[in-house]
Amino acid sequence: MPALNFNLQHTDTHSNARAGKIITDHGEILTPIFMPVGTAGSVKAVTQHQLVADVKAQIILGNTYHLYLRPGLEVIEKAGGLHQFINWQRPILTDSGGYQVFSLAGTRKIKEEGVTFQSHIDGSKHLFTPENVIDIQRSIGADIIMAFDECPPGGSDHKYAKKSMELTHRWLDRCCTQFNSTKDKYGYTQNLFPIVQGGTHKDLRKESCEYIASKNATGNAIGGLSVGEPEEMMYEICNFCCEHLPKEKPRYLMGVGTPWNILECIGMGIDMFDCVMPTRNGRNAMLFTTKGVINIDNKKWEQDFSPLDDGFACEVSNYYSKAYLRHLMKSKEILGLTIASIHNLAFYMWLVSEARKQITTSTFFNWKNEMFVRLKTRL
Amino acid sequence: MPALNFNLQHTDTHSNARAGKIITDHGEILTPIFMPVGTAGSVKAVTQHQLVADVKAQIILGNTYHLYLRPGLEVIEKAGGLHQFINWQRPILTDSGGYQVFSLAGTRKIKEEGVTFQSHIDGSKHLFTPENVIDIQRSIGADIIMAFDECPPGGSDHKYAKKSMELTHRWLDRCCTQFNSTKDKYGYTQNLFPIVQGGTHKDLRKESCEYIASKNATGNAIGGLSVGEPEEMMYEICNFCCEHLPKEKPRYLMGVGTPWNILECIGMGIDMFDCVMPTRNGRNAMLFTTKGVINIDNKKWEQDFSPLDDGFACEVSNYYSKAYLRHLMKSKEILGLTIASIHNLAFYMWLVSEARKQITTSTFFNWKNEMFVRLKTRL
Repeated sequence: MPALNFNLQHTDTHSNARAGKIITDHGEILTPIFMPVGTAGSVKAVTQHQLVADVKAQIILGNTYHLYLRPGLEVIEKAGGLHQFINWQRPILTDSGGYQVFSLAGTRKIKEEGVTFQSHIDGSKHLFTPENVIDIQRSIGADIIMAFDECPPGGSDHKYAKKSMELTHRWLDRCCTQFNSTKDKYGYTQNLFPIVQGGTHKDLRKESCEYIASKNATGNAIGGLSVGEPEEMMYEICNFCCEHLPKEKPRYLMGVGTPWNILECIGMGIDMFDCVMPTRNGRNAMLFTTKGVINIDNKKWEQDFSPLDDGFACEVSNYYSKAYLRHLMKSKEILGLTIASIHNLAFYMWLVSEARKQITTSTFFNWKNEMFVRLKTRL
Repeated sequence: MPALNFNLQHTDTHSNARAGKIITDHGEILTPIFMPVGTAGSVKAVTQHQLVADVKAQIILGNTYHLYLRPGLEVIEKAGGLHQFINWQRPILTDSGGYQVFSLAGTRKIKEEGVTFQSHIDGSKHLFTPENVIDIQRSIGADIIMAFDECPPGGSDHKYAKKSMELTHRWLDRCCTQFNSTKDKYGYTQNLFPIVQGGTHKDLRKESCEYIASKNATGNAIGGLSVGEPEEMMYEICNFCCEHLPKEKPRYLMGVGTPWNILECIGMGIDMFDCVMPTRNGRNAMLFTTKGVINIDNKKWEQDFSPLDDGFACEVSNYYSKAYLRHLMKSKEILGLTIASIHNLAFYMWLVSEARKQITTSTFFNWKNEMFVRLKTRL
């Protein structure tokens, strides 16, 4: 099988923004792309049909840690992989579980071999190693598998960040060895993306970018950002990493962020994004719209019968009013969570597809600066 | 405006089951019909689009008590009625709030004038009278408005049931007067359905049926069943009421029930049903299927990758597997609640539409007896 293919179609003349196309065995992904997060085999509160019809998702994420614990590999393997289990026939990327495991402070222990941790569900003890995390992701059946990395806490000093990065690099070697000595599990191509670490230290980030690039993977990811550092620092490091990662491979910025973060980082040359923000914040009454940010719990929307957002085409955003969604949220109706999640995800998808259009006409830079201000407006 | 029209199209030769058509200004309803419950302006966990496309709902319920408290009449009126507020363009029936108010034992007081009660939301005090309950439902904009009744507890003795029924009848007089002296609020026809009470006492039920029928409303409802009495008693009283209510008007059995309850009562001549069971039980992992009842939490479904139900056409029931829904429920994913609710509602809708088909070919009786056993099977 041929590996994932990335066609770089257009680079903006006034920024480093790129429009491209990633081709996988489960279909094409137009970049820049946002990937909705489906932690435990479900993009929270959204059906697979809504993901296609309303959100227009091209690829979704799964989470190794959560899926490994529940439903477990036996169920997923017997189903024929995650695509079959959840009945989603477009591409899936799985994060390696590293980030989740490291979040379990107190119940996990990092060693050279890997990380021992306790399940948040039943307290059972488990060991993740670079090797078994590759095997697990093979079994889940992700089109894009992420390397197992250590994500140091935001603000880690140089010494800790260096030590952590070096461990991540040694783990990457083991991930690559395991990946190369095992086969695609379900007949379609699986790809391994390594992850740049190094905290907020440019010398480490440079070293990490070069090490990651030397693996000649089909795509490269930037990890360890948006973990507590100031926003300006995140931008600076992201931009720095983009400069030091290969141009001809997709660049994936993990876990970032707000709509304006995404626009800014597209301008630096990022091609792929994921974040829980549209769904999590949506469930907490925060809407991102083409006109700015809305707290739908606010009394000012009580009698506003205008659509959630008429600035782009989405049946859900155009169909339901602000007053109705506010009522649903106040009444703790599940439908409110669904509407807010679909709207926010559809808005994120619209944002990246609009960015793509602007890149192809070389109007991205001005458009981005205008949108940047508008999207941050508190309505 | 012409009032609601009921065309009785076919009566079964081996039972009292009827196929008919109710024509409202918001469209036609083929009977027998099941009406999904949308208490607070939302059929829980289901979008309006899914109600049409997947559930195939022809009419939904709203609840006067809940909508009056939240979002309140000012919001609903300014939206132009509930249809506009929730963007649902098919018929809506509102129950009068009587049942909900009487459930607030301890915080409500029944007097001749009406019922004083405290809001479950903020403890504020309110008064429902036959007059204002009609006004409220006019403002909500229901196509079918229910009379304000007292629903005595299951097992009420003759004395209490009689006193309660007589109050319900006096309230009905006041409801009719108010209804007849007020106008349709939003330009389409609103209809008032009175409610038979009388507990489990046949003499009272007979008296109530005759009193209700004398009002010559466009449809008649049977209340006060499935409130704790034995199932056989419910059947007996329902059948008795059907015999004493006009044939040429739709008969609505309120709040009943299981799939087998519905089949049995269709056989007695009931045309309209509502119940929270498909949504509430669905959210608690109980699925009604064409092959029987499933507790999807059960470990036996862990590796069952067959569709939830392939016995009828519903994209959701055919698309998702039992193993996946079990995983979603175990993981407390919101999507699980949505899938279970849509499936159960679509199944109820399939059941009544299939019953209708069997009635029109006079094969209902045998089909019902066969289905009765199958639907109750625990899988």
